[in-house]
Amino acid sequence: MEFKIERADFSRCISRIQGIVERKNTMPILANCLIKAGKTGIDIMATDLDITIIDRSPAKVKKTGNASLNARKLHEIFRELEEGEVEFKEVEATKVEIKASNFTCSLQGINPDEFPVLPTVEGFQFFEIESKVLAEVISKTIYAAATEEGRFTLNGIFMEKLEGNLLRFVATDGHRMAAIDRDVEGAKDLKLQAGIILPKKGMLELQKLIAGVEGKVSLGVKDNHIALKTGDTVLFMRIVDGEFPDYKRVIPEGNPVKVLIGRDEFLKSLKRTSALVDEKARAVKIFFSKEKMVIESSNPSYGVAKSESACEYQGPSLEIGFNDRYLFEILSTVSGGKIQMEMKDELSPVLFTIDTDTKYQCVIMPMRV
Amino acid sequence: MEFKIERADFSRCISRIQGIVERKNTMPILANCLIKAGKTGIDIMATDLDITIIDRSPAKVKKTGNASLNARKLHEIFRELEEGEVEFKEVEATKVEIKASNFTCSLQGINPDEFPVLPTVEGFQFFEIESKVLAEVISKTIYAAATEEGRFTLNGIFMEKLEGNLLRFVATDGHRMAAIDRDVEGAKDLKLQAGIILPKKGMLELQKLIAGVEGKVSLGVKDNHIALKTGDTVLFMRIVDGEFPDYKRVIPEGNPVKVLIGRDEFLKSLKRTSALVDEKARAVKIFFSKEKMVIESSNPSYGVAKSESACEYQGPSLEIGFNDRYLFEILSTVSGGKIQMEMKDELSPVLFTIDTDTKYQCVIMPMRV
Repeated sequence: MEFKIERADFSRCISRIQGIVERKNTMPILANCLIKAGKTGIDIMATDLDITIIDRSPAKVKKTGNASLNARKLHEIFRELEEGEVEFKEVEATKVEIKASNFTCSLQGINPDEFPVLPTVEGFQFFEIESKVLAEVISKTIYAAATEEGRFTLNGIFMEKLEGNLLRFVATDGHRMAAIDRDVEGAKDLKLQAGIILPKKGMLELQKLIAGVEGKVSLGVKDNHIALKTGDTVLFMRIVDGEFPDYKRVIPEGNPVKVLIGRDEFLKSLKRTSALVDEKARAVKIFFSKEKMVIESSNPSYGVAKSESACEYQGPSLEIGFNDRYLFEILSTVSGGKIQMEMKDELSPVLFTIDTDTKYQCVIMPMRV
Repeated sequence: MEFKIERADFSRCISRIQGIVERKNTMPILANCLIKAGKTGIDIMATDLDITIIDRSPAKVKKTGNASLNARKLHEIFRELEEGEVEFKEVEATKVEIKASNFTCSLQGINPDEFPVLPTVEGFQFFEIESKVLAEVISKTIYAAATEEGRFTLNGIFMEKLEGNLLRFVATDGHRMAAIDRDVEGAKDLKLQAGIILPKKGMLELQKLIAGVEGKVSLGVKDNHIALKTGDTVLFMRIVDGEFPDYKRVIPEGNPVKVLIGRDEFLKSLKRTSALVDEKARAVKIFFSKEKMVIESSNPSYGVAKSESACEYQGPSLEIGFNDRYLFEILSTVSGGKIQMEMKDELSPVLFTIDTDTKYQCVIMPMRV
C-alpha cells in the first residue's frame, strides 16, 4: 500500500469516524480504522460492530492495498500537520510510514484481514430526505429515549410509515414520549411493515454527520440494517431487534383541562424555580387556575421558590407534579409559539403540543408530589 | 434585615464569590455567604478559612442586619431572575424571603453569628500595581507550582523584593521552575524581608478577579495575609507558612550549548509529535545538531514520530529528554519571538528564555530517555 493524500482530505475523513471507534480495549482491532487504497482513492472505515462508517477520499495511489491503524492516533497526528500532501507507505507487514513536511512517523498497525466484515450499500432500498427534516425528527424525539442499557427496545427511535408519504418517529423511556410526523416525498415507495427501531448511539452519530449538510441525504433500509449516505460518506447501523411498545395508548384523548401558555414564558418561569428543585427527586409542582400558572419547587435543605406566569386555562383548578428535566427537554426542542397542555387529572398522562406544529406530540407521566 | 437591590448588582457580587465557597460539606456554614446590610448598601462575604472575598454593592436598606444563605443557590436563583429590583427580607430568625417580578422564594439560612471571623483591610500596607502586570506574573509562574498537597511550600508563588522597585515572582515543583521580574513603581516602600509564598488556590482566584480589569489594583501585606483590592471587591488570602527552597541554585550558568529557535516553530514541531508521546512517561527526545532540531516521540503500542525544525545552534551535538507538558507550558506563556535554550549536558538543568523578555527565566530538569 502506498499513496499520497491532501492533509485536509484525510483529516476530514479521520475526524468523522472518531465517534465510532471503540475507546475501551475489549477488541484492539475496533480501535483501528481500515484504510483501503483502491485505484483512484482510499476508503477509510471504522466499526463498533453495530455501527459502521465508510468515508471515501481521492488520493494518488501508487500501490493498492489495505492497512489497519489506530484511528485516534491518526486523528491526533493529522490535527497537527501542516497543509500539503502526506505520504502513506507500507514499509513492512502491518507497519506504515507517514511522511509530511518536516515530519515522519512510523505506525504499527494490525493485520487488516482481522478487520470485521463490513456492510456494503448493495441491495439497500434508498430514499431521499431533506437533511434538516431528518435532523429535526431526531432532535425532537431522541431526548425521550431510554438511556438504561437494559431496556434495549426503548433505547432508540422508532420509525414507522403512516398513510401516504408520512413518516412517524417516536421515542419513549416509559415516563415520557415524543412523536413527530413528517411528510417525506421520497418515502412514498418505502416499505417498513410494523416499523423499525433505530439505535440511539447510531442516531447520535447520524445527527453529527448531517449537521450542516444542506439539501437532501439518502436513507436506506435492508434486512436488519439502515444506511445513511451523504456526499462520500455512508453510515450503517444495525436495527434494534425487538418490538417497540404500543406508544399510541399513552397519548391521552378527550382531556377536560386545557392550558395555553407562551413557550418562552413557560421556560423562563421554570428556570426561575430550578435552583430550588430537589436534586434527586427533580419534582416541580404546577398549580393551574384561571389565567395563572404557578410553578413551585422545594428543597428540604434550602427552601421553597414560586414563579408565576399568565396562561389561558379551561377547566377546574388543578395541582400536578412533573420532573422538571422532562419539561425543560420538551421546551428546548421548540422555539417561540404557544404550548398547549391537555390533561385529565394529576395522575393521568399529560399531552404537550405546540401551536406552530400540530404534528409534534409529547406526553409526560406526572409525578406524585 | 430588609433591603432592595438591583438584580444585576447582587448577581455580579454573588457570581464573584462562587470560587471561594466550599463545595464539600465539611462545615455547612462555609457553603454560605454572609450578607451584611449596612445603612447605604450591603457587603457579601465568603471564605474557605484560607481565602476570603468581600464584595460591596449599593442597596436600599430599610432595616440593617445580617443573614447567612447558601451561596450556590443564591447564584442559581439570580442567574434566572429578570432585571429589576429584588427584595430581601428576614421573615423569621435565619429565614429570608426574596421577592422579584413574578417570583418569590423563601430561603432557610444559618445563624450569621456562626460565620467565621473575617479579616478586614485595616493595617494592610497597600501598593498599586498594574492589573495586567499582576495577571502576567501569575500566568507566567503558576503553571510551574506543585499541585500535590503534601509539598505545601511549593504549592504557591513566591514573591520577593529585589533592589529598587523590582518584584520577583517564582514557582517550582522540583522538576521545573519559572521566575519573572517586574519593575513595580508602587512597590518602592514595600518591605517583605525574605519574601512570602502566595497560595496557588488564592492566586487562581485573584487571576479570575483581575481578568479584564483595566488600570491599577492594590496589593497589600499584613502579618500572615495579603489582600487585593479592585473596585468594591477585596480578596484576602493567608500566606503559606514555611520556607521557599533556594531556587537560585537551579538556574544553570555558563552553559556551553546554546540553541535559538522560533517560539512558533518550536511549538508546532512539538505538537506534531505529541500524538505518539507515551501517555504515562510523557517523554520526548530532542536531538540538537548544526542548524537542526529533531523532536522524537515514541509509544510502545503505536510507533515513533519525528519532527524537524531549523534552529541556530552552538556547541557539540546533544540528545536530551524532556517531559513534553513542561515544554508546552513554557511555550504557551509567551507568543512570537525566539526561545533560547542554554544547557551543559543531557543530565543538567536547562535554562529557557525568550528574546522579547530578558526578565523571564524558566528551568526544566531533563528526563533520562
